Amino acid sequence: MNFSIYLYRAFDQVRNILKTIMSMIRLNVFIQVSAENRSAALETAKELVEKSLKDNGCIAYDIFESATRSDVLMICETWKDAESLSAHEKRSIS
Amino acid sequence: MNFSIYLYRAFDQVRNILKTIMSMIRLNVFIQVSAENRSAALETAKELVEKSLKDNGCIAYDIFESATRSDVLMICETWKDAESLSAHEKRSIS
Repeated sequence: MNFSIYLYRAFDQVRNILKTIMSMIRLNVFIQVSAENRSAALETAKELVEKSLKDNGCIAYDIFESATRSDVLMICETWKDAESLSAHEKRSIS
Repeated sequence: MNFSIYLYRAFDQVRNILKTIMSMIRLNVFIQVSAENRSAALETAKELVEKSLKDNGCIAYDIFESATRSDVLMICETWKDAESLSAHEKRSIS
């Protein structure tokens, strides 16, 4: 393989990696819960994590509890692109 | 106040709000902990939260525990701009 072909392929790979990173979406969804509904909300969120992780284009999805504020939960989700997130949102609603 | 002055001021406010939002920085810092050091890491992080919240330009700062993976903690921090974050980092190191 000559050098210019090597260079072309290397640039192409970098371009594709950049394209992937630039299209990724990270969401931090903060949820305020009362002491009464905290446990139920957490259980529902854990089911949502399990389902969402199976969705196409889901890179990461987890539910977090604030260690300093017991009334705050947060879903942290990472999607490959806007299309994946949109499809996930449609599934979650239906 | 005539309409064009009103319009000018309204646009100026919108521009300033957009400028603030565009310069804000949100960080999600994931920390992997072992069962042995989890409790100590959490205590240190809570102290860091208390201190950081007092830093100039700190909009939000909290430590979160994954509800599905006991070895994962996450610091979620929001800064007014790059300068605030940079000053915070310098203080944290020293």
